[in-house]
Amino acid sequence: MITVNVDLGERSYPIRIGADLIGRTDLFAPHIAGASVTIVTNETVEPLYGESLRNALAPLGKQVSTVVLPDGEAFKHWETLNCIFDALLSAQADRKTTLIALGGGVIGDMTGFAAACYMRGVPFIQVPTTLLSQVDSSVGGKTGINHPLGKNMIGAFYQPQAVVADIGALRTLPERELAAGIAEIIKTAAIADAAFFEWLEANMDALNRREPEALAHAVKRSCELKASVVAADEREGGLRAILNFGHTFGHAIEAGLGYGQWLHGEAVGCGMVMAADLSVRVGHLDEAVRKRLLAVIEAARLPTRAPALGEDRYIELMKVDKKAEAGAIRFVLLNQLGGTLITDVPEDALRATLTACL
Amino acid sequence: MITVNVDLGERSYPIRIGADLIGRTDLFAPHIAGASVTIVTNETVEPLYGESLRNALAPLGKQVSTVVLPDGEAFKHWETLNCIFDALLSAQADRKTTLIALGGGVIGDMTGFAAACYMRGVPFIQVPTTLLSQVDSSVGGKTGINHPLGKNMIGAFYQPQAVVADIGALRTLPERELAAGIAEIIKTAAIADAAFFEWLEANMDALNRREPEALAHAVKRSCELKASVVAADEREGGLRAILNFGHTFGHAIEAGLGYGQWLHGEAVGCGMVMAADLSVRVGHLDEAVRKRLLAVIEAARLPTRAPALGEDRYIELMKVDKKAEAGAIRFVLLNQLGGTLITDVPEDALRATLTACL
Repeated sequence: MITVNVDLGERSYPIRIGADLIGRTDLFAPHIAGASVTIVTNETVEPLYGESLRNALAPLGKQVSTVVLPDGEAFKHWETLNCIFDALLSAQADRKTTLIALGGGVIGDMTGFAAACYMRGVPFIQVPTTLLSQVDSSVGGKTGINHPLGKNMIGAFYQPQAVVADIGALRTLPERELAAGIAEIIKTAAIADAAFFEWLEANMDALNRREPEALAHAVKRSCELKASVVAADEREGGLRAILNFGHTFGHAIEAGLGYGQWLHGEAVGCGMVMAADLSVRVGHLDEAVRKRLLAVIEAARLPTRAPALGEDRYIELMKVDKKAEAGAIRFVLLNQLGGTLITDVPEDALRATLTACL
Repeated sequence: MITVNVDLGERSYPIRIGADLIGRTDLFAPHIAGASVTIVTNETVEPLYGESLRNALAPLGKQVSTVVLPDGEAFKHWETLNCIFDALLSAQADRKTTLIALGGGVIGDMTGFAAACYMRGVPFIQVPTTLLSQVDSSVGGKTGINHPLGKNMIGAFYQPQAVVADIGALRTLPERELAAGIAEIIKTAAIADAAFFEWLEANMDALNRREPEALAHAVKRSCELKASVVAADEREGGLRAILNFGHTFGHAIEAGLGYGQWLHGEAVGCGMVMAADLSVRVGHLDEAVRKRLLAVIEAARLPTRAPALGEDRYIELMKVDKKAEAGAIRFVLLNQLGGTLITDVPEDALRATLTACL
């Protein structure tokens, strides 16, 4: 087992990474202070790992309840969140009740937001069971739900007590979701660590084959890199924005198609191709680097051509993105492997990128 | 104009108290950084003060929009909150948009929670127009909405940029709402400042007559006392719980009757009578002090007899209160004027208090 510490002062927490961690009582015991625990999971994950987690908690003598939500980004909205509040209130959960998010990014984001809001804040633990949530949504404290007019528009910054990232859970992950997780790993390498990017170029086959050592290293390095960015800028005042590389385009794809059509990681994969195209087009990035990024994204079996929503629709969608300010769209662009800049761009360059990538 | 500073490190903010402040551009100018402002108000307050506030903002050259919600505690729920999000997203509000809460406690709590959650946090300013919100909900950063199973169960701690408490707005306040505000003033005096309690005994007629000097002093002293408690315990880990004197009973009254039947301050007024009865019954408080508190509450024309919901129903409602822990009800009791203790109590004493007060 590897531990990555996320350093946020009194809100610091450990990420445990390794095989078959969900069943380990010792990883949960130090982080549950109250008398009760509510596990929040979904219909897909509950039959796979619910019992294992409850077995791990049993020796602690807590009152344990489980809320099972429908599976998918399409359910990441208020009505589903309210199912968590209903369950907590019906179980008379108090301010010391610990929530445990058992599932992917949607479960983590909603459970974290429920924990942030229930009685103005109760503790929670993340048990991410997808590669995407292990590398991305379990680091950084972003929680929230979608609104029909925009993704993650309603939420909070709220840190967990601990993250337990069980690499063993990735054995049951569907192919598309594995690729979606690799997309965020590629993103982190591209913006922050050229050496790690080269490691990915060399080891993409091992990741695709789900070799545990390769996955553990990729998760560890992604978490370390993201944790260092988040530690420097917990509430996204500046530096943290670089983590949105590929996301302005990606969010537009997700919102334009309707949430749940493309996986978040698939949209980010394609969004990085578009952001790299734009980076070259406005003169910040060498064409050779763009080609290497495209090749890695293709090797991860991610989509590289954006859905044909129409240029105007893309621009409209990007203007309501959270990163937009007074209607101006801000892009995270690459200037080298491991190097970024944040800027707006001439509309003709943006339209040229959309033409090239749709 | 008087200023009370709430000292919370980088989240510190000023409370401005005085007559006819809503129209003063200089009080808003320093606290609005972005290009747009959304005023959130209700159908009662908009015709009274909406134009005045928009006139104050006009010289700042911001894009100003207004959301008008239905009036009342009965609307303090998710559907109404979502009206704010809809309006913000439709207006393409960004992360620097400032929300201004123009109204009473319900508007302040919902607008603050919307500000806490919209894009994971945007700035907001409180313009409380009721006495209750001027002395209570505009100090301390508690925001949130109700759930059918409990009051303020979903929310956040989130501090405003500034509070503008216009004593002039109290001229149009209905009689019952004036009394409800005085209830929280009495509470603050009872738990924290015997001299201020004596001032209230001597000046209740002046407050009932809405004499501006008396109101301004009462608001100032209440805000100072509450601010010092909140500064010592922003997230309600300990000391801050004393502010809930009268609230465990009061919340049960509100929830039991259905939100909106009794005003929050009315329920707290009656809840203090019940908490004082319990304080005497378990041997912590002199009967003479209980009588003085009862007399002040009566002088403020507040209800002192609790609605007959039945003892068992009261106990059931109090067990889901946020202050309860693992099913045990914790009470804030008085041991003298300006002195409190927090404790659970024998069930027979609690039942005796309920019998005496219903």
